[in-house]
Amino acid sequence: MTEAPSGSAMALQEAVHEMLRRAQGAKRTLFVASTKQKNEALREMGKALWAECAAILAANMEDVAAAREAGQPEARIDRLALDERRVRQMVDGLAALIELPDPVGERMEHFVRPNGLDIRKVRVPMGVIAMIYEARPNVTVDAAGLAVKTGNVAVLRGGREALKSNQAIVRALHRGLAAAGLPQDAVLLVERTERETVDMLIRARGLVDLAIPRGGEGLIRRVVENAIVPVIETGVGNCHVYVDKAADFAKATAVIVNAKIQRPSVCNAAETLLVHKDVAAQWLPEAARTLLASGVELRVCDRAYAALAAVGLADLVQHATEADWATEYLALTLAVRIVDSLDDAIAHIERYGTAHSEVIITEDEVAAEQFLQRVDAAVVYHNASSRFTDGFEFGFGAEIGISTQKLHARGPMGLRELTSYKYVVHGDGQVRK
Amino acid sequence: MTEAPSGSAMALQEAVHEMLRRAQGAKRTLFVASTKQKNEALREMGKALWAECAAILAANMEDVAAAREAGQPEARIDRLALDERRVRQMVDGLAALIELPDPVGERMEHFVRPNGLDIRKVRVPMGVIAMIYEARPNVTVDAAGLAVKTGNVAVLRGGREALKSNQAIVRALHRGLAAAGLPQDAVLLVERTERETVDMLIRARGLVDLAIPRGGEGLIRRVVENAIVPVIETGVGNCHVYVDKAADFAKATAVIVNAKIQRPSVCNAAETLLVHKDVAAQWLPEAARTLLASGVELRVCDRAYAALAAVGLADLVQHATEADWATEYLALTLAVRIVDSLDDAIAHIERYGTAHSEVIITEDEVAAEQFLQRVDAAVVYHNASSRFTDGFEFGFGAEIGISTQKLHARGPMGLRELTSYKYVVHGDGQVRK
Repeated sequence: MTEAPSGSAMALQEAVHEMLRRAQGAKRTLFVASTKQKNEALREMGKALWAECAAILAANMEDVAAAREAGQPEARIDRLALDERRVRQMVDGLAALIELPDPVGERMEHFVRPNGLDIRKVRVPMGVIAMIYEARPNVTVDAAGLAVKTGNVAVLRGGREALKSNQAIVRALHRGLAAAGLPQDAVLLVERTERETVDMLIRARGLVDLAIPRGGEGLIRRVVENAIVPVIETGVGNCHVYVDKAADFAKATAVIVNAKIQRPSVCNAAETLLVHKDVAAQWLPEAARTLLASGVELRVCDRAYAALAAVGLADLVQHATEADWATEYLALTLAVRIVDSLDDAIAHIERYGTAHSEVIITEDEVAAEQFLQRVDAAVVYHNASSRFTDGFEFGFGAEIGISTQKLHARGPMGLRELTSYKYVVHGDGQVRK
Repeated sequence: MTEAPSGSAMALQEAVHEMLRRAQGAKRTLFVASTKQKNEALREMGKALWAECAAILAANMEDVAAAREAGQPEARIDRLALDERRVRQMVDGLAALIELPDPVGERMEHFVRPNGLDIRKVRVPMGVIAMIYEARPNVTVDAAGLAVKTGNVAVLRGGREALKSNQAIVRALHRGLAAAGLPQDAVLLVERTERETVDMLIRARGLVDLAIPRGGEGLIRRVVENAIVPVIETGVGNCHVYVDKAADFAKATAVIVNAKIQRPSVCNAAETLLVHKDVAAQWLPEAARTLLASGVELRVCDRAYAALAAVGLADLVQHATEADWATEYLALTLAVRIVDSLDDAIAHIERYGTAHSEVIITEDEVAAEQFLQRVDAAVVYHNASSRFTDGFEFGFGAEIGISTQKLHARGPMGLRELTSYKYVVHGDGQVRK
């Protein structure tokens, strides 16, 4: 179904496959590297990054200048730009990984069968992981560090705008790997940033063991729809806060404000507020005033409009359309809907949610358990903000992203989620009857 | 990249999607069904199957007659044909599932964060599982039973030859589900067996939570390459037995004979024997005689040929070609290669193996540990037959297949591997700082 590649596309594919074969070569060494050796590599990678800070910042200035020239929006330039403090954070991130337990080698299960076979289920590295991401150069260090810590090989396909920064960073990481006696090919940067190289990575069966896209919805969809290597899907969150009829009003206001405004651009921010009809008149106006005062645009259903109009807020809110229920705004906008019951709240979430993070605010334990049990999302919360869906907040000490799929990993992914396992069986000549 | 479907293809797609929407409806009920209710359904499904045994056998006779008419090979007809004993086995299979612990609801982890958030990681059903398989009608019962036990909905796409049998079986299963008060849509049969319906299932994002192909290499490859829903890849096994220089000869012979001949048609049978050069002259002739006496065809490397010619076996063996190292014979054929070292054995397995089941026979613990650690396969064995790679042999009490991927599940898959998890978080109004 894919078109036959042209001559230059064939050459590009050969270059990508050649890089992946180098990655496969390095994989053997990483697969059996000791915790000590991997931690030593992380330490040396950090040292080299810091030693080359000036070169990295110089390369980054070129990227930033080019992005300005190309008229990129300021928010994007901010994500791209590095300074000494941000490089320091990268170094600190690598140092923090050293302190975490190594998941590789962990014995997950151990049992002995009646025939005497001794079976251990042991964590092993995943292999070659292709990380596909966009502008931020800190992801380059982060992904490389997580991969090395877990005995995986990282093949990094960053965005075009960050290429010079990424090249300077990876040069430093290579010095660190070499200083620790690990192969430089454990971290490889795809320097050709044509769109096609993404497709080549995600279709390289046998050469890429796992692909993880980190970025906007368009990138993730493209990877998921075209990949024939295993993929972990991350990131899209149309999250809801449901304020039940038995809600504590102070908790309800605190949680929706936090979930909406503390960092609106991220996937675990709330996008829709659902309010039980019995508390709409009493609680919603107060909450709306607080949200409006924080600069939140409210897009509300007809009943919510009526409730807010009754207290003189009609001019300050918009009417919601069907599209609002399905939109991940990633901005200071909130859809608001009044529902008749817990069942209706759950039905709304089932229909429009993305199974990321869903919240109920209630003092009714029965309603809470119903919600927590019936809503099928990566993380379900009772009386807490959806913003806690995060590897660091969960105490994993690291985060590779938030999985929104049900296979392999769900919710915040830490080091363990970058591993697979194998069964190691000891026998004494057993054969099957 | 997919062609726009024609009118009739659109109608077919709509019919498949309509069925999947019914599956999604049933999913809500199954998601929260109690262990008692699911076990009751399994009991009633078994009763109904047995009660309708005559109707099932009559339908199966039609399938078998049609297959004979179409000139299908006898082995395929044998897989298709049912008798009272085979129906009894299906019923017993459902009864065995009742006895197994329910993985759903299992608390995998529980921790409390410094801010008081109480976080539980809890097993939940996967959702709607599309099972795509070929001729054997027993897979229909098996897949339906595993799905119900784990709170999943099974959408069954069996082979064309078994359609009438599968229809009769699913009618009985529906009676059982209804008797237990569970929705009949928990088990759905795709009655249109055009090839296109497979593609429609594996491209129905949002309607199918997981697809599992069970069948030959062609089917599995087709599903993996075309799927945009999550897939677990099963089954292809090019398994090796490596007889080390420190091997116990009796164990070596027993294991290679068992791994090759006990059931040659399955994925965990051995396909290549690797022999350390130091024991080739002493052990290989004896082993070759035993294998030849059991009807095994041997395809051997030049050095093995010389060793066997030296004891007068030249006429009884074939020369191996490069293709033999990469072939999963699934028949009484064995490739044989002499290697210079443990390293060479591991390199051969890395190059030609499918990361299924790999065996070392040795009394040298150091060599064994090297092999077990460095070989990256679903199951690695020291002094035991590769034939133990099996959910029942591992004590799981059930088996949905052998995963040959590293994401989610690897090796024999039991009930747990049909589940995902979610995080259930209890708070008291916590917000993120």
